[in-house]
Amino acid sequence: MTLQELGTNARAAARVLATAGAKEKNAALHAMADALLAHTADILAANAADIAAARENGMRESLIDRLALSEERIRGMADGMREVAALTDPVGEVMEGYRRPNGLAIRKVRVPMGVIGIIYEARPNVTADAAALCLKSGNATLLRGGKEAIRSNTAVVAALREGLTTAALPADAVQLLEDTSRETATAMMRLNDYLDVLIPRGGAGLIRSVVENATVPVIQTGVGNCHVYVDETADLLMAANIIENAKASRPSVCNAAETLLVHRAVAEEGLPLMAAKLAARGVALRGCDATCALLPEAIPATAEDWATEYGDYILAVKVVDSLDEAIDHINTYGTGHSECIVTDSHTAAERFTAAVDAAAVYVNASTRFTDGGEFGLGAEIGISTQKLHARGPMGLRELTTAKFIINGNGQCR
Amino acid sequence: MTLQELGTNARAAARVLATAGAKEKNAALHAMADALLAHTADILAANAADIAAARENGMRESLIDRLALSEERIRGMADGMREVAALTDPVGEVMEGYRRPNGLAIRKVRVPMGVIGIIYEARPNVTADAAALCLKSGNATLLRGGKEAIRSNTAVVAALREGLTTAALPADAVQLLEDTSRETATAMMRLNDYLDVLIPRGGAGLIRSVVENATVPVIQTGVGNCHVYVDETADLLMAANIIENAKASRPSVCNAAETLLVHRAVAEEGLPLMAAKLAARGVALRGCDATCALLPEAIPATAEDWATEYGDYILAVKVVDSLDEAIDHINTYGTGHSECIVTDSHTAAERFTAAVDAAAVYVNASTRFTDGGEFGLGAEIGISTQKLHARGPMGLRELTTAKFIINGNGQCR
Repeated sequence: MTLQELGTNARAAARVLATAGAKEKNAALHAMADALLAHTADILAANAADIAAARENGMRESLIDRLALSEERIRGMADGMREVAALTDPVGEVMEGYRRPNGLAIRKVRVPMGVIGIIYEARPNVTADAAALCLKSGNATLLRGGKEAIRSNTAVVAALREGLTTAALPADAVQLLEDTSRETATAMMRLNDYLDVLIPRGGAGLIRSVVENATVPVIQTGVGNCHVYVDETADLLMAANIIENAKASRPSVCNAAETLLVHRAVAEEGLPLMAAKLAARGVALRGCDATCALLPEAIPATAEDWATEYGDYILAVKVVDSLDEAIDHINTYGTGHSECIVTDSHTAAERFTAAVDAAAVYVNASTRFTDGGEFGLGAEIGISTQKLHARGPMGLRELTTAKFIINGNGQCR
Repeated sequence: MTLQELGTNARAAARVLATAGAKEKNAALHAMADALLAHTADILAANAADIAAARENGMRESLIDRLALSEERIRGMADGMREVAALTDPVGEVMEGYRRPNGLAIRKVRVPMGVIGIIYEARPNVTADAAALCLKSGNATLLRGGKEAIRSNTAVVAALREGLTTAALPADAVQLLEDTSRETATAMMRLNDYLDVLIPRGGAGLIRSVVENATVPVIQTGVGNCHVYVDETADLLMAANIIENAKASRPSVCNAAETLLVHRAVAEEGLPLMAAKLAARGVALRGCDATCALLPEAIPATAEDWATEYGDYILAVKVVDSLDEAIDHINTYGTGHSECIVTDSHTAAERFTAAVDAAAVYVNASTRFTDGGEFGLGAEIGISTQKLHARGPMGLRELTTAKFIINGNGQCR
C-alpha cells in the first residue's frame, strides 16, 4: 500500500474513533489484548525469524534483548493494553466553558488529534503500547518500527487489527508501514495531509533525523543529559543516595543522571562519600581537575564529557564555585529533561527551580522519577523535551487537542 | 550581527525575563509605549521611505495600506502595548499540584517558552504587537518582518528597545533581524539551539515556506477556508444574516466564509434570500449546477473553487443532499479554521460539532467570531490551525509552556 492509501485509511478510521465512546474503545483494547495472547505462537515465530536475521547481521546483544519477545513479554503487552483500558478517557472533557457578553456560549472541548504517526526502533513492545495509547485517546495510528523488527511488528499488528475487527471498530485504526526503507520513512515525515503529529521514540540519532526531515508537527522525546547538583548546604548522605540512584539504578534510561556537580565547600567531605557508593555499583568517574585531585580513581574529563549522555555506568563530575555556576553549566549542557538540586537552603532551591530550564526540576529527589507512571499519569507515550504542546511525561491527555464549540442564536459581528 | 549572536543575546535576555515579575514587565510595556510615541517622527520618516521604495517596486495599494503607518496607527500600537500590560500575567500559574504516595510534591507550573521567533510580512504594527505579547509572557523575541518594512521595523524596534532599557529590562528581549534575505530567514527557521518556537504570521505562501523549511517547532496560523452550512431546519433569515456577515463584513480576514453549503430542501426558498443580501454587499457567486439553476447571477464553480480562500467579495455556493454531505465537504476542503451550521435541529447541531474537524465550530453564529478578543483572551498572537500545542485563537497563555517542580526529602526510585 502507498503512504497515501495508508493515510486515507487512517483518516477514515480516525473519523469513526473521534466519536467512539470509552466503552467501545475499552472493549476494543480488551479484544486486542485477547488477540495478542491468542496469536502468541505466530508472534513468537515471527520474532524468532527477526532475531535470527538480526544475529546474522551482527546486531549487538543489548539490542537483541530489546527486540526479543517471549510468552511473558507478550503477556506484559496484553496486560498493558488492559491497563490502558482502565484509564480515564480524556476525550470529551470540557476544558473551559463560558458565555460572552453577546450571548455566545463557548466551550473548549478535548478531542483526539486525529492520526498520530509513531517512528521507533526495533522494539516490538512499543507497537502494542503506542497503539493502545493512541486508540484510547481516540486517534488512529500509523506505525513505523525499525526494519529489524518488521516480522514481529507485522504479526503483532495483525493480531491488534483482528481485535479491532472483533470489537467492531475499524481495523485501520492501527496500521503498520511494511516498507521499512529510509526513503519511505522520510516521506512519512512529510505526510502533512494525513498525519496530525509525529512522535519519534528512540535514540538521539532517530530523533534528530525526524526533527531534521519532518514537516508534520513533531513532539521531540527522550534525550536526557541530566544533572545532580549538590549544594553547599546539602545533607551529604542524602546526596550520595540520590546520585547513586540517579546514576546506577538504570543507567540506560533517559532520566538517569550523567553529570554530578558539587559545590566546592562540600567537595572534600562529600565526594569521597559519593564516590564510594558509586564505585560499589561499578560506576566509572570522569572528573574536572578538582575532582581528580580528591578522587584518585577519577580519570580527567574532556569538554565533550559535559555534553555526553553516556547511558552507561559512567558519570562526569565537576566541582563548582557557586549555585550560579551550577545553573549555568546545566543550562549550557543540559537537554531540558530532568535536573536535581540537593540542598537544605530554601533560597537555593527556589533559585534553582526558577532558573534551570528543564521539563522536570527536583529538590532533594532522584531524577529517575520523571516517568508517566511515577507522575501518576497511568501510562506514558514518551517524555517530551520540547516546550511546544507537552513537556515532560506525556500520557493520554497529551495525545489530544482542543476544539472550540460555540453556540449562538444568530450572532453576527 | 550573525544569527548566532542574535540567538545568544536572546537566550541571555530570556533568562532575565523568565524570573521577571508582572510589575517589571508591565512597567517595561508602558515605557515601550512611551518610547514609541516619543519617536513618532522617526518612525513616520522611516515608514515614508519604505512606502516610497515599495511604490517604486510596484507594490499593490492594498499591501501599501498594510505597510503604511500614521500618527493614529502609532498611537494604536502604543495603546495596544498598554492593553497587554493590563492583562493577567500567565507566568507562575500552578496548573496542577498533587502529592504522590511516596511523598513527592509535584507542581506543574506555567513558565515562558524562552525565545520566540516571529516571521511576518510587511506590517510594522505586527512588530509592536508581537513584541508586547512575547514580553508579557516572559519571552524574548526575534522578529523577522518583510523586507519592504525594514526601515519602519528598525525604527519601531529601536524605540521598543529604548523603552526596555528605561525600564531596566534587557534591550535584547526584542531583536530584529536586519538582514531580510531569504537565506537568512531559512537559517532562522533552523536555529534550534536558540529558538524554542517559531510563529509565522501572514499568507498561505509564507506559512507553507516556514512549515516546509523549519526544524524549530512551528505553530501554524491563519489559513482559513471557512464554510457556512444551512441545514434543512435552519431559520432562513438568520442564515442569510450569518452568511452575509461571515462573507462580507471583512472578506480579507482568515475567519471570513469562503463557501456556502445549503441543504437541497431549503435551497429554493433560501438561496434567493441569501443571494439578495450578498448582492447588496457586492459579493460575486460561484455555484454548483443546482445553485446556478436557482440563481442566474451565479457563474459555474470549478473544483478549484471549493479549495480556494478568496479573501475577497467572492463566495462559492453548493447545494448538498444531506448533513453528512456537508460534513464530508468541509472535512475534505476545509483548513480546520472555523465552520458554521445554521440549524434548529439539536441532533444536527450535535452531529456537526462532533464530526467537523476544525478549531472552532459554530452553531447559529458567524464564523467571524474566531478571534482572541471576541473569545475573551484579551489579545491574540494568531489563530492556530494545527492541533499541536494550541488550536484556535492564541493569547498569552499559548506563549507559555510548563515546568514540573518536584519537592522531596531524599526520595529514590
